Amino acid sequence: MSELRIKQRITTMDELLNTLRQFAAERDWDQFHSPKNLSMALAVEASELLEIFQWMQESESLAPNAVTRERIAEELADVFVYCLLMSNKLDIDLLQAAQSKMQKNAEKYPADKVKGSNKKYTEY
Amino acid sequence: MSELRIKQRITTMDELLNTLRQFAAERDWDQFHSPKNLSMALAVEASELLEIFQWMQESESLAPNAVTRERIAEELADVFVYCLLMSNKLDIDLLQAAQSKMQKNAEKYPADKVKGSNKKYTEY
Amino acid sequence: MSELRIKQRITTMDELLNTLRQFAAERDWDQFHSPKNLSMALAVEASELLEIFQWMQESESLAPNAVTRERIAEELADVFVYCLLMSNKLDIDLLQAAQSKMQKNAEKYPADKVKGSNKKYTEY
Amino acid sequence: MSELRIKQRITTMDELLNTLRQFAAERDWDQFHSPKNLSMALAVEASELLEIFQWMQESESLAPNAVTRERIAEELADVFVYCLLMSNKLDIDLLQAAQSKMQKNAEKYPADKVKGSNKKYTEY
Repeated sequence: MSELRIKQRITTMDELLNTLRQFAAERDWDQFHSPKNLSMALAVEASELLEIFQWMQESESLAPNAVTRERIAEELADVFVYCLLMSNKLDIDLLQAAQSKMQKNAEKYPADKVKGSNKKYTEY
Repeated sequence: MSELRIKQRITTMDELLNTLRQFAAERDWDQFHSPKNLSMALAVEASELLEIFQWMQESESLAPNAVTRERIAEELADVFVYCLLMSNKLDIDLLQAAQSKMQKNAEKYPADKVKGSNKKYTEY
Repeated sequence: MSELRIKQRITTMDELLNTLRQFAAERDWDQFHSPKNLSMALAVEASELLEIFQWMQESESLAPNAVTRERIAEELADVFVYCLLMSNKLDIDLLQAAQSKMQKNAEKYPADKVKGSNKKYTEY
Repeated sequence: MSELRIKQRITTMDELLNTLRQFAAERDWDQFHSPKNLSMALAVEASELLEIFQWMQESESLAPNAVTRERIAEELADVFVYCLLMSNKLDIDLLQAAQSKMQKNAEKYPADKVKGSNKKYTEY
């Protein structure tokens, strides 16, 4: 996929999604991308990120070295890619879905009640 | 957080990230958001998405009903939100990281070799 | 399933597995228990355990209160149950598989080389 | 850990747990095994199992070839090992916890109501 290498830098989610679609189409991989399978791939990638941090102390995780930071960026990128593929497959607008969810969260966790607490909302 | 509700529709990742930062700041939650903890939260949300599909057939997952689709959108939004929080915490440019990863993937999985196959690249 | 309640205390993995088989049979749930689906259910339960710890400090996690400890026991039990169902479905002897894996691990991580280190074996 | 190799075959959870304890002690790894970290390791291993099945059809997963079956056994063993380490760390009796959970499940999902259905109990 030499086109990717010479391509200008991607600057929007739509451009990235177009690249992802092209990548899957060239490999005839769309047939494997049922939402069920994509949810599995997304969880697998999320756990590869988790793996990086599993034996680290929280304080260490705040200042990873360059090599570790690069691994984190790669795994996070994979998670993001599967988010986009899933949203594309089910025609979900990710930004709008996130905005709606934040509005729900704002009601579930009123700032004055939960300030500085890590308790779950069910405990309020 | 009534400001959220009256806000114009969010249309870019940067706008969403600003909203997320404000949301966490108002609750003094940034203290819990170490990369280690965020990787856990991200994996938890990815699994809540997984849960929706666990007993579904692949064909069913391609055409969820409206209620299920709404649940999917919410869980996917949660995953996306933690992606952004993690990228923000470690100053990672998600779009650029995804573009780099896609370029690596293009080399690992040459289109002419992997077309239509679900084998892992290690098997090529 | 009143038989369960009056049953003697379960003391072996085989007894537990027999109970699980009976439970699934009475509900005609075996049809959903493909290894693919069981791997999803297992990951979902593992993440419900993860959720309990996501905002906790490591030191807190070492001494959970009684309510939290009970939640941990329940989620851990769910993970264990799906381990057993998967092993049963594919006729895998869990104890033997674990013993084999420990022998491999003993070779990958020689005690004198890795003592006190949390580095991954690939780094040795 | 040559003792492991010459050891008799492990036939009970207690024997396996003793081996695991010895393995961790020889490597001074117990210091990393906080319940928080163990919950992460458990989720990571559960996802390595998930990864095997992510692009497979359900029917394929019912009859894996010998190589795949061996990989499944190894990943399942890892999950089981972390279950045991977590139960040991928090002094939880896994068999008893599983029995209690099954009794709760029997009440949540009465056989006559849920027979043959994959709906979640909240929908009953």
